[in-house]
Amino acid sequence: MSERRILEDDLGFLIARTSALLVKTTNRKLSSLGLKVRGYSALAAVCDEPDGITQRRLASDVGLDPSQIVALVDELESRDLVVRTTDPNDRRNKLILATDAGRELCGRARELTRDVSREHFVGADDDQLEALRDLLYRTTFNTSTT
Amino acid sequence: MSERRILEDDLGFLIARTSALLVKTTNRKLSSLGLKVRGYSALAAVCDEPDGITQRRLASDVGLDPSQIVALVDELESRDLVVRTTDPNDRRNKLILATDAGRELCGRARELTRDVSREHFVGADDDQLEALRDLLYRTTFNTSTT
Repeated sequence: MSERRILEDDLGFLIARTSALLVKTTNRKLSSLGLKVRGYSALAAVCDEPDGITQRRLASDVGLDPSQIVALVDELESRDLVVRTTDPNDRRNKLILATDAGRELCGRARELTRDVSREHFVGADDDQLEALRDLLYRTTFNTSTT
Repeated sequence: MSERRILEDDLGFLIARTSALLVKTTNRKLSSLGLKVRGYSALAAVCDEPDGITQRRLASDVGLDPSQIVALVDELESRDLVVRTTDPNDRRNKLILATDAGRELCGRARELTRDVSREHFVGADDDQLEALRDLLYRTTFNTSTT
């Protein structure tokens, strides 16, 4: 048994603290674009699907409740960053698509979030951050059931 | 510029999703001990200080507001897992100390949280998890100002 302090040894705790810090810093950084982390995540998920995305799928990708997603999409739509259209393959379905302005803003926000990560993980080289990204992507998206 | 999807490339997003999943799984696991992640973190931080810890320091270690900490300590105290005593070096100060029962429960909870991490990061070996722990500890605790 290691003599390390219990909290500092707890991977879940360290991840939660890191996440809370990154959200705080990222919100501050994104405020220059009128975005917060959640709105940016929703916008990024929409930009990731050039043919459009359903609200249900968007909620699942971002990891939020459908009710939370509606408010986020409403806000993005009111700023002309996304539009709701009818699915050409199923007219009962609504699809959300990014506008050119939405893609442009998403690109700028993406740069800012990368800056936040680089500044937070100062001292870690690109290989270490890539290994971290791969590990989190592989394990979290494989186990995610939302 | 990588062709990777924007969300999957975003380290902050991946960390937030991982954290949310781990909290959910850990809460489920700890419920067998009548604990949730926050209560366990507070108990662990108290156990980490055998000579006692002030409420202010506890809030800072765990990363919560002092008002949230009061409720957590009240609950731990009502279960005889911690006690509030007077600081022998400064009688105006209250110190929180773990009881034997608190230490015993904390040890059991610690095992469960380790199981959660191991199960979540399935496929990652001990060296990878140790590197992850070191990276998060070094960067998050160096930049934390709470």
